[in-house]
Amino acid sequence: MTRALLMSSSRMGNMNYLEHADEQIHRLLQHKKQNILFIPYAAVTFSFDKFEAIVQPVFRALGYELKSIHHFSDPISAVQEAQAIAIGGGNTFALLKRLYDAKIVDVISQRVKQDGVPYMGWSAGSNVATPTIRTTNDMPIVQPPSFNSLNISPFQINPHFISGKPVGHNGESREERLNEFLTINPTEELIALYEGTALFIENEQGTILGDQNALWLRGPDKIEEITTNQPFRLDMIKGA
Amino acid sequence: MTRALLMSSSRMGNMNYLEHADEQIHRLLQHKKQNILFIPYAAVTFSFDKFEAIVQPVFRALGYELKSIHHFSDPISAVQEAQAIAIGGGNTFALLKRLYDAKIVDVISQRVKQDGVPYMGWSAGSNVATPTIRTTNDMPIVQPPSFNSLNISPFQINPHFISGKPVGHNGESREERLNEFLTINPTEELIALYEGTALFIENEQGTILGDQNALWLRGPDKIEEITTNQPFRLDMIKGA
Repeated sequence: MTRALLMSSSRMGNMNYLEHADEQIHRLLQHKKQNILFIPYAAVTFSFDKFEAIVQPVFRALGYELKSIHHFSDPISAVQEAQAIAIGGGNTFALLKRLYDAKIVDVISQRVKQDGVPYMGWSAGSNVATPTIRTTNDMPIVQPPSFNSLNISPFQINPHFISGKPVGHNGESREERLNEFLTINPTEELIALYEGTALFIENEQGTILGDQNALWLRGPDKIEEITTNQPFRLDMIKGA
Repeated sequence: MTRALLMSSSRMGNMNYLEHADEQIHRLLQHKKQNILFIPYAAVTFSFDKFEAIVQPVFRALGYELKSIHHFSDPISAVQEAQAIAIGGGNTFALLKRLYDAKIVDVISQRVKQDGVPYMGWSAGSNVATPTIRTTNDMPIVQPPSFNSLNISPFQINPHFISGKPVGHNGESREERLNEFLTINPTEELIALYEGTALFIENEQGTILGDQNALWLRGPDKIEEITTNQPFRLDMIKGA
C-alpha cells in the first residue's frame, strides 16, 4: 500500500523552493490535514533549523503542518508516529549515514511500505527512496555503513537529470555515468528524471508527473521514454 | 621515499590521451628503461585489453614498457615485482572495489611508500592515491568495502576541477560539493586540480605541474592558490 512522491529536484528553473510541486504534493497528501515529519539530514552547509525554516512555510501555505525530526528526543518513535514523511535534498551520503546513525532506515521503509504512510522526497530524498544510493550525483563526502537505502521505489532513480557536459571539459557526461552503472549492473534498469518532474508511486503503479517525459534506461545507450501522466506498472522496470 | 605523479585528467582540452603529460611522466620515470605495471580496473564500459591498447603506445613512445595487471595470474606478486605502477582513470568506485577484490590495496601502498616504486595515476587513479575516495566526482555505481584508499598523498585531491554548473540547472556546483566536504570534515583541507595539471610528490615535498595554479581549499569558501612549479611542504596541507 505504498504511496510516494519522488521528485527530481526542489526547484525547476528559476522558480522558488518546491513552487513547481504544489499539485504533486496535494496529489500525495490529498488535501487532508496532517502532520508531516520532516527529515533534514541531507543538509550539510546549513543547519537543520534553517532547512526546516525553508520548507515549513511551503507546506503551511498548502495546508499541511510540518515538524523536523531534530526536535524529537527519540527519532525512532517520531517515525513510528508520523502521519507523513518528507526527506529533503542535499548530500545523499550525509543523509544516508545520518539515517543509519539514527537507526531509522528500516522503520521508515516499514512505515511507508506496510503502514501506507505517504512519503515524499526530493533530490537526495528521492535517491534514498530507491534500493541503493548507487545512482546519486552527489560527492561521497562521508561513508555510510552501506549503500542500501529505503527501497520504496523497487528500482534506481537518477534525479537532476541533465544531458551532456560542459564544453571543453573531460569529465564524464551524465549519460556516460549512467552507462557505467548499467554496464556494471547488467540486470538492472533505471529511470532518469529531469528537474521539475517526479515519480508518483501508488501501490504497484507508477506515474511520471511534470511537463517532461522520463527516460527509461534499459541498458547502455538503450533509452526509451516514459510518457508523463500515463500510469504504468512498476514491475515493467527491472530493479535491484 | 614516495615518488608519485597524481594527474587531474588523461586529457587536456582537445589533446590526445596523456599527450599533455609527456614531461610530467618523464619527470617521474626519469627516462630510465623500466616495466610499468598498469592497473585498468577503473574501466567499466570498455575492456581491460582495450584500456591497455590505449595506454601502452603512449608510454612506448616515451620509451617505457607497460603491461596490464589482468595478464598476470597473481595480481599480488605482479605488484610486488613492479618497477613502476600506473592506475588509469574511469570510475573510482569500480576501481577501488576491484583493488580490494584483488587484495592489492595495502601492497600497492607499501611498494610506493616504503620501497619507493614510482606511482602515477590520473583521474580515478589520483582519487585512489589519496587517504579516501571522498572527493571523487564519480557516480557510486558499486559499493567498495571501504572508502579508504592508497594514502600516497596525505590529503584529499579533487581532480577534473571545474568551476560553476550548467546555466538553469539546480544541481550543486563543484565548489558547493567541496564546501560540503570541508564542512562535514572540518579538520581536513584539500587540493583541487584543473584538467592538465598534476600534483608531483617527492618525499615530503609537493609541486604542482602544468600551466595553471592549483586551488588549496582550506575550509568552506576559504580558497588559496598554490603556484605551479613551486615546491611546497606536503604537511602544509591538512590531511585525513
